[in-house]
Amino acid sequence: MPVSTFILSSSLALQLVSGAAPVATKSAPTKPAQTAKAFTPPLAVAEKLVGPALTEGHSYARLAELTDGIGPRLSGSEGAAAAVQWALRSFKADGVKAWTEPVKVPRWVRGEERGEVLASERTRGHPLFLLALGGSPPTAPEGLTAEVVEVTSLEALAALGDGVKGKIVFFNHTMSVAADYGRFAGLRGRGPALAAKAGAAGALVRSLATASLRTPHTGSTRFEDEGPRIPAASITTEDADLLHRQLEKGAVRVKLVLGCSELPDADSHNVVAEIRGREKPQEIVLISAHLDSWDVGTGAHDDGAGVVMVMEAARLIAKLPQAPRRTVRVVLYMNEENGLRGGRAYAEAHAAELSRHVAAMEMDAGGGRPVGVSLRAGAGGQELLKPWLSPLVALGAANFSAREAGGADISPLLPARVPFFGVEVDSSRYFDVHHTHADTLDKVDPQDLARSTAATAWVTYALAESPATLVRPEAPAAPPGSAPVAAPQKASAGH
Amino acid sequence: MPVSTFILSSSLALQLVSGAAPVATKSAPTKPAQTAKAFTPPLAVAEKLVGPALTEGHSYARLAELTDGIGPRLSGSEGAAAAVQWALRSFKADGVKAWTEPVKVPRWVRGEERGEVLASERTRGHPLFLLALGGSPPTAPEGLTAEVVEVTSLEALAALGDGVKGKIVFFNHTMSVAADYGRFAGLRGRGPALAAKAGAAGALVRSLATASLRTPHTGSTRFEDEGPRIPAASITTEDADLLHRQLEKGAVRVKLVLGCSELPDADSHNVVAEIRGREKPQEIVLISAHLDSWDVGTGAHDDGAGVVMVMEAARLIAKLPQAPRRTVRVVLYMNEENGLRGGRAYAEAHAAELSRHVAAMEMDAGGGRPVGVSLRAGAGGQELLKPWLSPLVALGAANFSAREAGGADISPLLPARVPFFGVEVDSSRYFDVHHTHADTLDKVDPQDLARSTAATAWVTYALAESPATLVRPEAPAAPPGSAPVAAPQKASAGH
Repeated sequence: MPVSTFILSSSLALQLVSGAAPVATKSAPTKPAQTAKAFTPPLAVAEKLVGPALTEGHSYARLAELTDGIGPRLSGSEGAAAAVQWALRSFKADGVKAWTEPVKVPRWVRGEERGEVLASERTRGHPLFLLALGGSPPTAPEGLTAEVVEVTSLEALAALGDGVKGKIVFFNHTMSVAADYGRFAGLRGRGPALAAKAGAAGALVRSLATASLRTPHTGSTRFEDEGPRIPAASITTEDADLLHRQLEKGAVRVKLVLGCSELPDADSHNVVAEIRGREKPQEIVLISAHLDSWDVGTGAHDDGAGVVMVMEAARLIAKLPQAPRRTVRVVLYMNEENGLRGGRAYAEAHAAELSRHVAAMEMDAGGGRPVGVSLRAGAGGQELLKPWLSPLVALGAANFSAREAGGADISPLLPARVPFFGVEVDSSRYFDVHHTHADTLDKVDPQDLARSTAATAWVTYALAESPATLVRPEAPAAPPGSAPVAAPQKASAGH
Repeated sequence: MPVSTFILSSSLALQLVSGAAPVATKSAPTKPAQTAKAFTPPLAVAEKLVGPALTEGHSYARLAELTDGIGPRLSGSEGAAAAVQWALRSFKADGVKAWTEPVKVPRWVRGEERGEVLASERTRGHPLFLLALGGSPPTAPEGLTAEVVEVTSLEALAALGDGVKGKIVFFNHTMSVAADYGRFAGLRGRGPALAAKAGAAGALVRSLATASLRTPHTGSTRFEDEGPRIPAASITTEDADLLHRQLEKGAVRVKLVLGCSELPDADSHNVVAEIRGREKPQEIVLISAHLDSWDVGTGAHDDGAGVVMVMEAARLIAKLPQAPRRTVRVVLYMNEENGLRGGRAYAEAHAAELSRHVAAMEMDAGGGRPVGVSLRAGAGGQELLKPWLSPLVALGAANFSAREAGGADISPLLPARVPFFGVEVDSSRYFDVHHTHADTLDKVDPQDLARSTAATAWVTYALAESPATLVRPEAPAAPPGSAPVAAPQKASAGH
């Protein structure tokens, strides 16, 4: 549908911005004098950022270019390369200086894939709707046929010991709402590797989903470099329920054919852009999202929405009469989905200036409406940002979220104690489409996207313009390198 | 999930039945004498029908047998033949006499199928998620590649005239709620034939859907025996939106590969069962559903739910201490989905006794909860049934629906002026899964199914036991044979 039917009128948007400001500059003369130290954010700037973000439909139009025009963009694919070029062109069109930085990415490619519950005395058999998990090896060309054993936790898998030898381990769970994702994502991420170590022949994982119309959800699974690998796929909740019902009655055999393959690492890029600060250009506020997506759907929510939010924030900030005090840097990371190579490459390449990164954020929880602002910083962070929140009132986001800010791609910045911030969005329906063929443009509400874009632009400006900077947080407990990069709690939603 | 977690306790169910009766037999002594003519339905029988239907979970268990055990059952397929045998076995186990009656059915078989929006300067191309429509011919093996032209009505197609020659006609529409189905079903049913007559090379129809996760909805399309036929498929709402957006910007070319085929007609069967009436066995109350389903999903809502409702109604009526006054006949029709051959075969084979069919119904709108009772009869129908409604109060169905009763398979009984009745169910979410891979057991709520089963059993008993019968309605306006069998308004929901 045309964007114009969805966006707010320009005058309404400006009214919202002005009306939302509790510190109303125009009414000051008729009110008691304010305390001398009261901080007033530059509301004229808020009108220039929040207003156009709400009314111009630019972020949604750009999301259409990325999803309809380019489509899926798994690391190493032609789509990913096209997205890099698109981002460079777009930043140039916006008058924002941009460049690429090299990232060597894994190149996993999906092949033929199918599965079936074999006929038994209890069923004439059923097709399984599935997607190979990123990182899965293929089956033999003739497929893998084995008995299925169901577990609902990694502990239950461990308890079975040798009992899974030669079998297909079926990881079932009870995810029903978005907040369950973190609880069960380990079944997909680590389950197949652990099953392989125990001698299993294959793995099926119930999709991490909050809705399904026979809709499989893919995602990464991680095998150790030297450990055994087994074919692993996600199946739909419907098929998981069917397997469960059949297993209650007796033995179930499944045939699985996966033709996926791991090609040699490929050359790819992060796209980096920046608006140089007017007073303290050496101080950097980093805003980011990831340009890669899964190879199914068109990555509209994950993470096209995040990409266009931060690009639009940069475009609007670049158009201001004067740049903010500090440098705003945009990073569109490559390879969040299946490797995090872009996040690591940035942290390595920019190690020398991470002490000058005064704030960083990644938008990667879909294109929902904004619901609040999050922080991960030392003492006084909320006090610093609070006076800046008034333009967010009309967006429903003028409050601090209980969640800690974070993001998978910025997690490599944790050891350098970079303060994190974020605009939290409503992701209650995010896992309806996350990592599926259904993550397409129509699922993103243009108004919600416009609101989150507006909030992103304004909070970014606030941290780039604020007289003071956030206090750096304590370093994370575990030293870097002791474990795979651990995404903070928030980040798991974006994986 | 186990049925036991969903069904009501037996005592609660009986309490509901008794408590729901406005004519409370036990409290009569303490109340003023009732008028001499007040009719009291046999509430002891209601307890024996409604109670077990709510508490025993038998209809849901049987739906699991049909969907998990047998699966899809398109006319002419092995699944359809297996379903006939299953139905015979099940009636026998229930102590209900059953037999088969021959039906010659079309045998349409799905093959390889895929489609894509070809790359242009505006897009790198996209896969189309589609299902060939039942009745579609195949494309050439190398596929059909043509420009797309969008229309949103049959009138708009006619207005284009020669403009569709050699093109793929894309039928788009705005279905958003279940009630829209009737408005737009003609685009699928008749659109491709009309496009073919106008010289089109192929047809794509936006799925008739109220939800989508890249979920195509199949269904029948009808070509005239001597008219031209073109490959026709339904595409998902996501892909329809994409096509629409791309067409707004310029020409779009699509490649379509359909490998479906029409095999020679096959021998199949209706399954008929009956409980002979104790007083007027020659008078028949016909209750029905259709045993065939589409070849995708497992036909849980369409029409497994209807099948198990009427089978369970028969089982419970057969267990009563004495049979109802009239004969209750169950017909499980074959070929509702793509031919209506079963409905026509029954009407022909039983032509001599249709004047003794005192009522007929088909349950074919899914397994939702009951919301009311419908009729299509001469004067006085509601007055006849009204005294019987009290056991339906606790089920939320003790009212008359504004909809006229009907059903595709019983529509051939219209010329014989057979009165129709029905238990209307909540079908607001029916078109989320209708004719899709997602029409599976998990979509049917066991409690809703139990309630509609209970209502079906009771209303059937009421018409078989009531002292009087429904007055026969006027014959339909159009004489039979003047047009394809026109399903009444209600029936369209079940196609």
